[in-house]
Amino acid sequence: MANDEKLAPWEELRELIERSDTERLTRFLEELGTAEMARAISRLAQNDQSRLLGLLDPSEAAELIEDVAEVQAVDMIAELPPERAAAIVEELPSDRRADLLAQLGSSESEAILDEMEPAEARDARQLLAYPSDCAGGLMITEFLAYRAEQTVTDVRQDLERNRERYAGYDVQYLYVLGEAEALVGVLRMRDLLFPSSGARLDSLMIRSPISVPAELPIEELERVFDEHHLFGVPVVDGAQRLLGVVLPEAVEEHLRKRAVRQVLGISGIVGGEELRTLPLHVRSGRRLSWLSLNVVLNLIAASVIASYQDTIAAVITLAVFLPIISDMSGCSGNQAVAVSMRELTLGLVKPRELARVLAKESSLGIVNGLALGSLLGTVAYLWQGNVWLGAVVGAALALNTLVSVSLGGVLPLVLRRLGLDPALVSGPVLTTVTDMCGFFLLLSFATTVLPRLA
Amino acid sequence: MANDEKLAPWEELRELIERSDTERLTRFLEELGTAEMARAISRLAQNDQSRLLGLLDPSEAAELIEDVAEVQAVDMIAELPPERAAAIVEELPSDRRADLLAQLGSSESEAILDEMEPAEARDARQLLAYPSDCAGGLMITEFLAYRAEQTVTDVRQDLERNRERYAGYDVQYLYVLGEAEALVGVLRMRDLLFPSSGARLDSLMIRSPISVPAELPIEELERVFDEHHLFGVPVVDGAQRLLGVVLPEAVEEHLRKRAVRQVLGISGIVGGEELRTLPLHVRSGRRLSWLSLNVVLNLIAASVIASYQDTIAAVITLAVFLPIISDMSGCSGNQAVAVSMRELTLGLVKPRELARVLAKESSLGIVNGLALGSLLGTVAYLWQGNVWLGAVVGAALALNTLVSVSLGGVLPLVLRRLGLDPALVSGPVLTTVTDMCGFFLLLSFATTVLPRLA
Repeated sequence: MANDEKLAPWEELRELIERSDTERLTRFLEELGTAEMARAISRLAQNDQSRLLGLLDPSEAAELIEDVAEVQAVDMIAELPPERAAAIVEELPSDRRADLLAQLGSSESEAILDEMEPAEARDARQLLAYPSDCAGGLMITEFLAYRAEQTVTDVRQDLERNRERYAGYDVQYLYVLGEAEALVGVLRMRDLLFPSSGARLDSLMIRSPISVPAELPIEELERVFDEHHLFGVPVVDGAQRLLGVVLPEAVEEHLRKRAVRQVLGISGIVGGEELRTLPLHVRSGRRLSWLSLNVVLNLIAASVIASYQDTIAAVITLAVFLPIISDMSGCSGNQAVAVSMRELTLGLVKPRELARVLAKESSLGIVNGLALGSLLGTVAYLWQGNVWLGAVVGAALALNTLVSVSLGGVLPLVLRRLGLDPALVSGPVLTTVTDMCGFFLLLSFATTVLPRLA
Repeated sequence: MANDEKLAPWEELRELIERSDTERLTRFLEELGTAEMARAISRLAQNDQSRLLGLLDPSEAAELIEDVAEVQAVDMIAELPPERAAAIVEELPSDRRADLLAQLGSSESEAILDEMEPAEARDARQLLAYPSDCAGGLMITEFLAYRAEQTVTDVRQDLERNRERYAGYDVQYLYVLGEAEALVGVLRMRDLLFPSSGARLDSLMIRSPISVPAELPIEELERVFDEHHLFGVPVVDGAQRLLGVVLPEAVEEHLRKRAVRQVLGISGIVGGEELRTLPLHVRSGRRLSWLSLNVVLNLIAASVIASYQDTIAAVITLAVFLPIISDMSGCSGNQAVAVSMRELTLGLVKPRELARVLAKESSLGIVNGLALGSLLGTVAYLWQGNVWLGAVVGAALALNTLVSVSLGGVLPLVLRRLGLDPALVSGPVLTTVTDMCGFFLLLSFATTVLPRLA
């Protein structure tokens, strides 16, 4: 297998880690480029990944942490001794740092915070105190703020002195603070180009700038950016003190992660993102936790079939249509779930507007139920030459489509009101109910007209 | 029903539209706020939405267009006469404009482009020529560029003169152009604060700045931003001429939209996003196009059951387990699909690495297959007291889990190589194959040991 002449990047990386050759390691990672590096690291065993972080100096390790997938970064940091992890975490920008710490277990993140410099740790704890989907959780704490009575010269001197430290700051805006550190104005960098050096900031600034409270939810933040075309919005506390700045890309990034979690949730990937480098028992265990629940729900649904065994014994053909009705109703219902989740996200429907959604979906359920029922009923009739079979199959699918589309439409609204995640919960609930209902409709209709079917 | 004392916002809006009361309309929309406005507009009939756009002046209409959901904006613009649409579209920022035009039919967007000012239309056509998921399709064309021999004073004067026009520009950076308009350097706004007024830009600028070609795909752009912490990256053509600037939020926003499309695709919402304000026949027709395909696939899968009717007649209990095996295999397979799609997105797996994914998923498939097979087999045995039934059911689910997990893992890679969208195609293909395979395994095993089951 091994071929010394042409090692894959990850094999070469593993060798350098084993030889603890920091210098060549650093050079090799640089030459690889971000994409190849992320892929190579994802191939390493978990302890090799952590050894790699241990070999690099903290600022290089922090850069690497920013380049790999977030789920991987969390795992790598979790494996390190806290003081080593703290040194790396200190090098990260404030928002990344908070994201990372928030995803570690609370005992792990506390251990790391205890090893950090007190001031940095205090900042990080402050950010961690906010939920990740509100302004406080999304803001960065690297911003430029000056006192109202300072002059253009003061600012210029400060910028000149701290050139390097400010390099990664949000420097579209300079924030101006008044009494008790309250935010009173904002200046754009270019506003400093024209005035005379002695001009005070409060004579130049835009007064009463747009600001948001730390508790503002992300949906509202998105609207603020849609409406005002800002390159950053200041976050303030109840006393109007400046806490941080939310950048538009932070909002977009968080909403993207949320959409990704929806894809994973719908697909039954729970307990966090899964990469194939995770140990088999972790991947298998997480997937099984979800699947086991589904086995139970499936058994509950199938128990309906069990109580109609005599009917199936008389008309074996029904066994062919049971899985079809189950699957088709699931498909119809999932479409309605997706539209409701989307309208909730876009703010076009409120969780209490059940009646409106029900009216919209039930009319669609009738149309699509009639269409699908006619189609499947006709197939059943043509296949067995029994018009009653066609009628039973068609009517069962038609009615069950109406049920599943209506249920699928309102379910996300109800779950949202109950504080449950529609992406995770809608699928299993919908499938179980529509399966039971579909099996019952088909088999009870069949039982009613049994002499005509047999 | 109607209650004059308390109209819902959308009813009040409809009344104002009917009365064509532009002045009160403008005021009413302002007072509503973005969230309520978007919701109210989404409730209006389609022709009322377009009449509303017609009543507002173009810049107000453009603001409104930016505030409503994109799918809605496209529908509203499509309904307007081209010259009216053109007046509104001209007021949008360049990237929004290109997004909107790209989503209209090509005859509709051409009609609007023909009505636009020639210079604006040329810019818009240039952006439209790039695919939406590469640097050229994501860039804005509002940026500040100066010639290398210009001085700090020249720039200051230009900024002063064009204050208003530059308000919405990406002004973190000033781009410096050399001979033949080639990009030769970049300056941050604050770099202009310190030097003497007569200094030439080429004496101050950062030389050979990071730039990307217009064809660079979005995944690579994401890496550029991850690596360099830039607030914008210049886009150049083959001759290094500056074409535009990509902002990090544009990249995040596009990736978010892609994740949303995945959610919709997985859920069977095809042919574009669906809002409940769309006419019933459109919503029903789009959903049915997807469902009809699924009926056919379901019939193909169920035909396997039809050929084993004698076995089912002998052991009716099997009918109970058919839908369970179908559903459970679907769940297991979808988990593997989700992980593969995610690893593809993160660049952690390449479409040609089938063998690696197959090895990883098949080992997981064996573990989970054994677990689920034992569980369901035990239930079957306990229920009927027949150990052979337990063995048949358990073995069928175990083997089919292996098949579905392995297939689910490699399917997105294969589809990507074939240029198909894994989010849309994986589900139906997976379900059909694993249903057929599951039905065959259960019923053929049962047939083999039939005397022991009956």
